[in-house]
Amino acid sequence: MATLTPYQQLEQEFRRLHAFRGALAVLRWDAAVTMPRGSADVRGEQLAALELECHALLASPRLARLLERAQAGAVTLEDWQSANLREMRRLRDHAVAMPPSLIARLARAVAQAEARWREAREHNDFGVLVPQLEEVVRLVRSRAELLAQRFSLDPWDALADEFTPGLLSRDIDALFTPLSRRLPALVTEALERQAERPVLAIEGRFAPGRQRALCTEVMKALGFPFDRGRFDDCDHAFTEGVPGDIRVTASFNPRDPFQGLLGALHETGQALYDLGLPAAWVDQPVGQDRGMALEESQSLLLEMIVGRSRAFVAWLRPLLEKHYDVSGPPWSEDNLYACLNRVARGPNRSEADELTYQTHIVLRYELERRLLSGRLAVRELRDAWNDLSAQRLGLVPVSDVEGCLQDIHWATGAFGHFPSYGVGAVIAGQLWEAIREQEPGIDEEIRAGRFACLLDWLRQRVHAQGARFGVPELVRHATGRALSAAPFLRYLERKYSSDPPDRAAAGA
Amino acid sequence: MATLTPYQQLEQEFRRLHAFRGALAVLRWDAAVTMPRGSADVRGEQLAALELECHALLASPRLARLLERAQAGAVTLEDWQSANLREMRRLRDHAVAMPPSLIARLARAVAQAEARWREAREHNDFGVLVPQLEEVVRLVRSRAELLAQRFSLDPWDALADEFTPGLLSRDIDALFTPLSRRLPALVTEALERQAERPVLAIEGRFAPGRQRALCTEVMKALGFPFDRGRFDDCDHAFTEGVPGDIRVTASFNPRDPFQGLLGALHETGQALYDLGLPAAWVDQPVGQDRGMALEESQSLLLEMIVGRSRAFVAWLRPLLEKHYDVSGPPWSEDNLYACLNRVARGPNRSEADELTYQTHIVLRYELERRLLSGRLAVRELRDAWNDLSAQRLGLVPVSDVEGCLQDIHWATGAFGHFPSYGVGAVIAGQLWEAIREQEPGIDEEIRAGRFACLLDWLRQRVHAQGARFGVPELVRHATGRALSAAPFLRYLERKYSSDPPDRAAAGA
Repeated sequence: MATLTPYQQLEQEFRRLHAFRGALAVLRWDAAVTMPRGSADVRGEQLAALELECHALLASPRLARLLERAQAGAVTLEDWQSANLREMRRLRDHAVAMPPSLIARLARAVAQAEARWREAREHNDFGVLVPQLEEVVRLVRSRAELLAQRFSLDPWDALADEFTPGLLSRDIDALFTPLSRRLPALVTEALERQAERPVLAIEGRFAPGRQRALCTEVMKALGFPFDRGRFDDCDHAFTEGVPGDIRVTASFNPRDPFQGLLGALHETGQALYDLGLPAAWVDQPVGQDRGMALEESQSLLLEMIVGRSRAFVAWLRPLLEKHYDVSGPPWSEDNLYACLNRVARGPNRSEADELTYQTHIVLRYELERRLLSGRLAVRELRDAWNDLSAQRLGLVPVSDVEGCLQDIHWATGAFGHFPSYGVGAVIAGQLWEAIREQEPGIDEEIRAGRFACLLDWLRQRVHAQGARFGVPELVRHATGRALSAAPFLRYLERKYSSDPPDRAAAGA
Repeated sequence: MATLTPYQQLEQEFRRLHAFRGALAVLRWDAAVTMPRGSADVRGEQLAALELECHALLASPRLARLLERAQAGAVTLEDWQSANLREMRRLRDHAVAMPPSLIARLARAVAQAEARWREAREHNDFGVLVPQLEEVVRLVRSRAELLAQRFSLDPWDALADEFTPGLLSRDIDALFTPLSRRLPALVTEALERQAERPVLAIEGRFAPGRQRALCTEVMKALGFPFDRGRFDDCDHAFTEGVPGDIRVTASFNPRDPFQGLLGALHETGQALYDLGLPAAWVDQPVGQDRGMALEESQSLLLEMIVGRSRAFVAWLRPLLEKHYDVSGPPWSEDNLYACLNRVARGPNRSEADELTYQTHIVLRYELERRLLSGRLAVRELRDAWNDLSAQRLGLVPVSDVEGCLQDIHWATGAFGHFPSYGVGAVIAGQLWEAIREQEPGIDEEIRAGRFACLLDWLRQRVHAQGARFGVPELVRHATGRALSAAPFLRYLERKYSSDPPDRAAAGA
C-alpha cells in the first residue's frame, strides 16, 4: 500500500467524521419520528457519545499536525482539494475555539434556558426567562469573543459565520437596508390592492392521509427520490439525513389544506439541495451544503417563490381537486393564487408572508446585535421588542408569547442565526431572476408539472458547488452577478406593488 | 474532581462502547425497517465506521493498561465489579485475538459466500457454494485456532464460547446425548398418538393488521413496555436495540394465523430479557445478556412452552375470536392446542416442532465439528448431511434447498452457533420446571392472562443476573440445580409420550 500524503490522511479522517455525522442524523430522525416515548435518556447518551467523538476527532493533535503538513504542501493540491483543506481547517478552528469548560457551561445554561422558555410561554411572561437568558447571553458573548479573536472578526460576525460563511454584518446590512427602506410602503400598497379584491375563504376538513398523498405526488414531480429518502408525519416539519438518505417530515393540520404542503415544499427544497451536493465530495467538508442561508434559499425558492407562483398554482389546482375532492369558486386558480399570496401584518414570524417576513428578521437582527454587544440588557428586551414592533411592523404584540417569547433561538444560544433566513430569501430572489433569464420557458415547464429544468439549473449552479465558495462567491458564480437585494426587491415589486415595473416578467 | 481508579476509568470506556453499540443497534433496526431501499451504501459506511470505532476502543493499548492495573487492584472490587472486570477482559481478548488482516479476509470471504449461498439456493445446487464455503471454513479454522490458543480451549469450544459462555462441548454433549437417545422413539410415540386424534384444519385469510393487533394485545399482557419499545412489521422477525429502547418485528403470513404470533412471542421473550437486565449495570459488560443460549431460552420458553401450553391456549382463544372474528369447532381449545403442538418429521429446522427441532440441531452440531476439525471436507457436506438426515430424521431431503442449503449460518462464518438453539431449549425446560415448582398457581395465572408472576420470576432469577455468571452457573443459580437435560426431557415426555410419567404436572 502506497503511503498516503497528509492531505489524503485528512480525507480519511473526515470520511470517518462524515460517517459519524450520518449516524447522528439517523439517531436524531429516529428520536423525532420513530423512537419510543420513554427512550429519550438512552438516546441522549448515544448522541452525546457520538458528538463527543466528532469533537475529539476534530480537536485531536493528530488532526492539527496533518493540517499543518497538508498546508505546507498545499501548492500541489487541485482547486477542490484546496477548498476542502480550507473547510477542514474551518471545522477544526470552530471545534477548538471553545475550551471544553465553556462548552459544558453553555450546554447546561442552554438546557435550563430552553426549559425556562417553555415555562415562560406557559405563564406568558418573559420575566420568567430573564435570569437564564442572561446567563446564555453572557456565555455566548464569551464564545463570540473567543471565535472573534481566532478568526479576526467582529464578535457577532464570528457567530454568524457558522450560518452564512463568508458574509459579514456589513454585507448583511447592505442587503437588508434597501429592503427596510422599501418594504413598509410596499406592504401598504399590497394591503390596499388586496382590499380591492376580496378572496373567497377556503374551508373544510382535509384528512392528513389525503394531504400526505398530495405532498407525495408533488414531491415526486419535483424530483424527490423516494428510494433515497423518506417522507413522514411528525409534530414539526424538518429535513434530516445525509446525501443518499434524506428524510423529510411534515405536520398536517386538518383545517388547513396548504400549511402541510408548503412545509413539505420548504423541506423538499433543502432535501434536493442535499441530494444534489457534489457526489465526488460527499464525505468531505467541501461536499457539504454552504450553510443555513443557502439551505434557506433553496427552501424559500420552492415554498415562497415557485410554490406560490401563478404557474405552480395552475399545475396544483387539479391535484387539489383530485386529492381533496373539492371544486367550486374558492378553488379557482385566481382565488387559490390570491389566498396563497395574501399579505397581512401580524406579530408572528413563522406565520408571516414573504413581504412582512423580512421585517421580522430585521427586527431580530437589530435586537440580537444590541444584546450581544451589551447595548441592550436582557431584562429590557421585551420593551425594546415591543417598541421596534410598533415602529417597524406597525403593531405591538398583545402578549409576550406573541412577541419576544415566540422564538426559541436565543434561549438555545443561537445568535447570528436569524439573518440567514432573510439572506436566504434575498438569494432565492436573485437565483429566481437568473433562472427566468436563462430559462425563458420555465413558467410553461412548471405549469406542465415539469421541474427538471428548474432542478437541473439549481443542481449545476448551486447544489453541485457544495462548500467550494463562500456565500457571496457562490451567488456570483451561480447568477453571474454580485449578491444584491435588488433582484428580490424587483420580484416583490412586480408581485405586490400597485405600480409594478413589469408584472408579467416577474412570474408572479 | 477526584481521580478515577483504573477500574472506574474502564467503566467510563465501556459506557462509551455501550453508547456506540446502542447507536449501531438503531442503525441496524432502521436499515431493516425504515431505511430507503437505495441507501444501503450510505448505511454500510456508517456501520463500518462505528464498528471500527468499537474495535479500536477494545483493542487500544490504553484499555490493555487499564485492565492490567485494574486487575492488580482487583481485591478491592465488589462481587459485581469483579464479574464486570472479567467480562471486560473477555471482550477485549476476543477483539484482539484476530489480527486485522484475518478480520478483513474473513469479512470478504463471508460477503462472497453469502451471495453465493443465495445463488446456490436459486440453482438448488450446493456445488455452487463449495469453493466459497471452503474459504470461509479455512479462515474460521484459523480464527478458532487463534482463539483456542488465547483461551486455552479446544478450537470449536473457543468459537462456541461467544454464544454459550462457560459451556464447553463436553457439557453440550452431556445435554444432547440423552436427548438423542430418547427423542427418536418419542417422536414415533407422538406421531402414533396424533394419528388417533386427527385435528380440524384451520383455514382462512388473516389480515396482517388484525394479526398485528392480536400480537400487540398479547405483548401488552406479557409486559412488553410500548413506551420503551416498538413493534413493527418486517420481512423477518427479530429483536434489536438496547435496554430502554427495544424493538421487535414480526412477519405476518395472511394464510397462517399463528406464525406471526409465535414469532412475536419468540422475540418478546428476548426483548423482556433485555429489558430486565440489571439497571445498575446497563451500560457495562456485566449488565449484558448471557449470550445466545440464554436469549434463546427466554424466546423458546415463551414461544414453545408457555405459548403452546393448555393454559395459554385457553386465554388466547377468546382473543383469536375477537381479533380474527372466527368461531366454530376448529377454534375450540382442544383443536387449537392440538394444532399448535403438532409433531411432524420434516426436513426444515425453522419449521420444526419442539420435539424434532433438537434432532436438527444435533445434526448440525455433529457436522460443523467435523467440518472445523477437517474430518469432513466441504465438498462432502451434502452427502454427509443427507446420510445423517436419513439416520436421525428418518428422511432424505428431496433437494439441497431443503437440505444442506437451508441455513445461512455457516456461509456467514457462524460456527459454534447452532448448539445454542438446542441448549436454549434445554434451559427453557429447566427454568419452566423450577417455575412450576415454586409458583404452583402459574397455570391459573396464565389462564387468566396474568403474566406478572412468570415475568417476576424470570426477572429476578435470570434477567437481573446479566452476565454475572457463566451459563451453567446462571442456570444453577436460577433453578437451584445443575444444568441438565432431564427437566426438558421430563417436560417432553409428559407432553408427547404415550406413557407419560405424570402428564398433568407438566402443564402441557
